[in-house]
Amino acid sequence: MREIIKQGLAFRGKKVTSTEARKTFKDQPFKLELIKDFAREKKQLSIYKTGDVFTDLCRGGHVKNTKEINPDAFRLTSIAGAYWKGSEKNPQLQRVYGVAFKTKRELEVYLLQQEEAKKRDHRKLGKELDLFTFSDLVGPGLPLYTPRGTIIINELYRELLRISKDYGVQEVKIPHMAKIELYETSGHAEKFKDELFKVKSHYDIEFVLKPVNCPHHTQIYASRPRSYRDLPLRFIESTAQHRDEKPGEIGGLSRTRSFTVDDGHTFCRVDQIKEEAKNTCRIIERFYKALGLWGDHWVSLSVRDPKTPEKYIGIKADWDKAEKMIQEVSKELKLGGKVVKGEAAIYGPKIDFMFKDALGKEIQLATVQIDFAMPKRFGLTYTTAGGKQETPVMLHRAILGSYERFLAILLEHYAGAFPLWLAPVQVAILPISQKFTSYAEKVAKALREKNIRVEISDANETIGKQIREAELQKIPYLLVVGEKEIKSNSVAVRKRGKGDIGVEKLSKFVEEISKEINERKA
Amino acid sequence: MREIIKQGLAFRGKKVTSTEARKTFKDQPFKLELIKDFAREKKQLSIYKTGDVFTDLCRGGHVKNTKEINPDAFRLTSIAGAYWKGSEKNPQLQRVYGVAFKTKRELEVYLLQQEEAKKRDHRKLGKELDLFTFSDLVGPGLPLYTPRGTIIINELYRELLRISKDYGVQEVKIPHMAKIELYETSGHAEKFKDELFKVKSHYDIEFVLKPVNCPHHTQIYASRPRSYRDLPLRFIESTAQHRDEKPGEIGGLSRTRSFTVDDGHTFCRVDQIKEEAKNTCRIIERFYKALGLWGDHWVSLSVRDPKTPEKYIGIKADWDKAEKMIQEVSKELKLGGKVVKGEAAIYGPKIDFMFKDALGKEIQLATVQIDFAMPKRFGLTYTTAGGKQETPVMLHRAILGSYERFLAILLEHYAGAFPLWLAPVQVAILPISQKFTSYAEKVAKALREKNIRVEISDANETIGKQIREAELQKIPYLLVVGEKEIKSNSVAVRKRGKGDIGVEKLSKFVEEISKEINERKA
Repeated sequence: MREIIKQGLAFRGKKVTSTEARKTFKDQPFKLELIKDFAREKKQLSIYKTGDVFTDLCRGGHVKNTKEINPDAFRLTSIAGAYWKGSEKNPQLQRVYGVAFKTKRELEVYLLQQEEAKKRDHRKLGKELDLFTFSDLVGPGLPLYTPRGTIIINELYRELLRISKDYGVQEVKIPHMAKIELYETSGHAEKFKDELFKVKSHYDIEFVLKPVNCPHHTQIYASRPRSYRDLPLRFIESTAQHRDEKPGEIGGLSRTRSFTVDDGHTFCRVDQIKEEAKNTCRIIERFYKALGLWGDHWVSLSVRDPKTPEKYIGIKADWDKAEKMIQEVSKELKLGGKVVKGEAAIYGPKIDFMFKDALGKEIQLATVQIDFAMPKRFGLTYTTAGGKQETPVMLHRAILGSYERFLAILLEHYAGAFPLWLAPVQVAILPISQKFTSYAEKVAKALREKNIRVEISDANETIGKQIREAELQKIPYLLVVGEKEIKSNSVAVRKRGKGDIGVEKLSKFVEEISKEINERKA
Repeated sequence: MREIIKQGLAFRGKKVTSTEARKTFKDQPFKLELIKDFAREKKQLSIYKTGDVFTDLCRGGHVKNTKEINPDAFRLTSIAGAYWKGSEKNPQLQRVYGVAFKTKRELEVYLLQQEEAKKRDHRKLGKELDLFTFSDLVGPGLPLYTPRGTIIINELYRELLRISKDYGVQEVKIPHMAKIELYETSGHAEKFKDELFKVKSHYDIEFVLKPVNCPHHTQIYASRPRSYRDLPLRFIESTAQHRDEKPGEIGGLSRTRSFTVDDGHTFCRVDQIKEEAKNTCRIIERFYKALGLWGDHWVSLSVRDPKTPEKYIGIKADWDKAEKMIQEVSKELKLGGKVVKGEAAIYGPKIDFMFKDALGKEIQLATVQIDFAMPKRFGLTYTTAGGKQETPVMLHRAILGSYERFLAILLEHYAGAFPLWLAPVQVAILPISQKFTSYAEKVAKALREKNIRVEISDANETIGKQIREAELQKIPYLLVVGEKEIKSNSVAVRKRGKGDIGVEKLSKFVEEISKEINERKA
């Protein structure tokens, strides 16, 4: 690299025909294959030369001269085998990875960030904390949750439910597949055509795995006549969805083939949209506060692009009303929402909650979407007070999005140290020696009776090793028990991040930790 | 029918070759098709004649003479269209249904039973009580649960969890599909080959929808090294399974294409089998008691057929031990189990709990199965105290089996009147007029704070109509509220099946109903 930089080689590009390209790369079978592909797609080909040293089939995007590269600010980061076109059936090539920055300082910041990210990588932490696993026999993109990972997923769902039920939300359960006709009606067959998993029956019927839940929910709505007094109907759901992601795009829990969304759909009248949207925003605020993430976000009020009204379906008067409503919602709830033109869905405006991941990358997590279109497509109606049939509006909501992606984000955000209420093991009891295991059992029982998640560590190990292992597992509270504690019916408490915080009566500790869990301190 | 009986026609059968059969039925295209099918399967054909009146291609199984039919003890029950060979693509035929008994009394009993069954039919009750629905767009065999149905499913699962957690059971979550290799390893690919749903990916990988959960659970076990001290590991699960059932066999919730089993697998050492099996039986007893079903069953101790030892896999000494253990379990827990030879699975002995449905038909619901084979197939091991690698034993457990089938059974058993703890709506509040709705709200709030499921009925209706509708919904408690109740801060209580049971202070009612729910009185 340093040699090349010193030589000051210029990058020069030119457009070529596929005949010329084939001639230039006649001895390079992979390039010839690409040229053929590009010709089929009628793409303009170009060739780039680095001085007279290297000729590449390349779309460009280079510095002008190798001298522009700061020799103190680049790094060849890794070398790895890569299958040609990502398929295991093809030959393996060697790929050299590198990064370059303007200044040495920028390179250093980047490398530090990468190192931090590696430590927080949810795949690494997930293994260390025994939260989930993948199996070659089960297949890529299909996570299996261990007991500890399952606790986190369940606690998240329970918390969402607990909050949502204050706003009249009801759980429903739907099957994981449907006839393709369901998605032809909703429009998802077209939208997800490359990601749909088709299911082959031995009989004369074509199923697909559900890529979304909304069409199923319309069918529960449609299962009986509805009156204006029945609305709003608010369904939520936590069954898995499936999308046939590209093998190269699957990674850990960030993108999976099977994932579960906390998916909710409210069917309501136009005059109810605002209150429903407000309530969903209230749920979002309470939920993210319990995770300590509220405040670290901004709110996008995604509306139509006024220049292209033809891009949107539905009645203009409804849109005007709905867009005004979401701005009122933002104002009344002090969300500080920013109107972003052109970001509405084709079926209605949205309120999107944008957070940042551990590396500072922006991600949309919670969302409230107003939908005038789908209820019409499915012919849903309700009887008005005047006895007429009208079409309800549908609000789509997701609070945390996919549990898989959310767990990955949380793991990296907390670097594995989950808030007490969410920690898979909340308390570890550490007996100083075998003699004290029956007292440890007694302490465990007192905690378990209050539904606190407890583990007793192995009394055969030294207390030092027990503490180290419990700390590696990022357990919020460690209770050391020995002679002294038995006599005073107490526990010696170590708090995560704080170390030894003194001896407490067992009953007092149980009371305090229960309170801390109930308060959802993050 | 009466005419035919009077004529005293004899049924006479004879075996024929397919050539003869084709000649006899040369003008009957459906019969010719059957003859062709049977010839391909090399089946012996036979023809039956009813006097000289009717000639049929038939395997037989008749009375000798039409006179044997008691003219007072038969009934032509219905007539219905039926597609040839069950396929919608074929022409429709008319089918006449009838039953015949020896005595008029037997016919009457049968007809009464049918009438009762119709009233209790879970499909009818499911619709009336708004518990689940099917959709033509979603497809046959794929139930969707409404909010009320979801409550019942969730309560059943929560109850199972609540009991199971006393015995160290842990929840896990697994994806709904896997590579076919997983089931080739487990042996299920062969066993379920006609019921497997294949999932088509756009990429080079073949998935199937999971027909069972055990192979996935082995992969969680295999995700890290295990020691003898880690055992037993007890995983439970409630994600959906899929089997491609024949269209003709699908009906309501009794047989579906998508179903969810409360599936559990314990990995343990041989010396732990007995205690684990005992604990599962304890869970079963507690669960069925909460449903009022305990006692209405018998227990099968399903062991090898000693005459065909070659039919079973595994080591004889392990089998001997395990079979002895399940008999000890039955004795020590006073299950009154009956040893049934030849009913073991090929991989180990079983304890099966046999119940009866509303029509008296026997069904196996709960089961505990000892499995020596699957852990070996997947190469599972644990390190013994001596540092050696050994294969664990696997116990399969299901307490209620498929939630779908179980809900159908419960619906028919209770005729829709679920025990209080399981009822989707536990209390209906009936305001005598609009004036009392705010007090009704207050009562509802007091109950909801104790997690009691409440609905307020429509004050625009007369109190008589409100009572009738709540009774049709089989709601356990109705609280009538008016002037008198507001003044005394009380409620006028009507109990399902008992009617008016008097006025009670609100606080006392809340306390009593909470107690009744917690006690799981069935």
